[in-house]
Amino acid sequence: MDGQDEHCVEFWFDFASGYAYFGAHDLLNFAKRYSLRIVWRPFMLGSAFKVTGATGLSSTPLKAEYAKHDWARLARLQNLPFTLHDEHPRITLPAMRAFYWIERRSVEVAGHFALATLNAYFQDARDMGDLDAVVELGSNFGFQKDQIRRGVNDPEIKALARAKSEEAIARGVFGSPFFFLEGEPFWGWDRIPLMEKWLVEEGW
Amino acid sequence: MDGQDEHCVEFWFDFASGYAYFGAHDLLNFAKRYSLRIVWRPFMLGSAFKVTGATGLSSTPLKAEYAKHDWARLARLQNLPFTLHDEHPRITLPAMRAFYWIERRSVEVAGHFALATLNAYFQDARDMGDLDAVVELGSNFGFQKDQIRRGVNDPEIKALARAKSEEAIARGVFGSPFFFLEGEPFWGWDRIPLMEKWLVEEGW
Repeated sequence: MDGQDEHCVEFWFDFASGYAYFGAHDLLNFAKRYSLRIVWRPFMLGSAFKVTGATGLSSTPLKAEYAKHDWARLARLQNLPFTLHDEHPRITLPAMRAFYWIERRSVEVAGHFALATLNAYFQDARDMGDLDAVVELGSNFGFQKDQIRRGVNDPEIKALARAKSEEAIARGVFGSPFFFLEGEPFWGWDRIPLMEKWLVEEGW
Repeated sequence: MDGQDEHCVEFWFDFASGYAYFGAHDLLNFAKRYSLRIVWRPFMLGSAFKVTGATGLSSTPLKAEYAKHDWARLARLQNLPFTLHDEHPRITLPAMRAFYWIERRSVEVAGHFALATLNAYFQDARDMGDLDAVVELGSNFGFQKDQIRRGVNDPEIKALARAKSEEAIARGVFGSPFFFLEGEPFWGWDRIPLMEKWLVEEGW
């Protein structure tokens, strides 16, 4: 590390991903320690599943039970609240579109909105697949509700959001969270320590 | 930890799993540091895939490329040789049966055989789905070749091996490697540090 604030870590995730919620909180700590800029990159994990043939954790036998147990364990470990929506996973396309609409206005605000969305989903069990909930949350960040609603429904924003999911697949992203540290891919919440090692040792 | 040598870690894995190879080497270090007994538990990951609907890493788009990149990266990290068989993954049922046949004779020798099998597969790219290769390897552990061959083909051993794969599923094992530390489940090579934390802090 040369100490210059040029490094960034890309954080690809689905707003309905439990591991992305824990990953975001860990990543914030990690990024702070090394003055890394986080590039928030929400995408629709379902698009990747169409390529890999995978199914969501919560609809996969055996994995679903493990994930529930594991999330509760991680919540205790990280001292984070965790409440799952009764109908998890929600399809969080409106939240993703709102994110990219906000990002065009302010990259920094978009990052705060992304974290707030994950927290609303996994701490308050709010349905972030619901446009009204997304608009409500977005209005805490200095935007008019009508403005956000129009943004989410703007064909250009819809196309941009779709292109992000396509970009994810083109770059080999198949799960959430998925990180790139200066081009190097790391899949999964549990890889953050390895990513830190990669950063400190400048790869190996 | 009370210092008594009563603790054990169960290590469920498929002999054709790249992450099990790296996991075994890490687990040996971990177990040594804490005087943990390793219970080697090979099973057929394909049996679990029938329940979860998952496919093997190497036949899954996107994941296959990531796994190849990741294995090479882990090999450099752990300073371990790694060469993949041209027709990976092999169906390592004969190796699994040989393991359980050996385990009836000596739990300790079975552990050495298991590690040797993983090393032969991933260091020397030997086809450990081939009965002759398994018999050859087993003969390094003090058994007659004919004896091992009869053991692998013994209906009782076949039933025992099948029962182990069924036990894996019944206990929620869906991937390889998969560990149980005093009943607590941990999935994946990358969870060994968390398992260590669990051991030291006696859970949380």
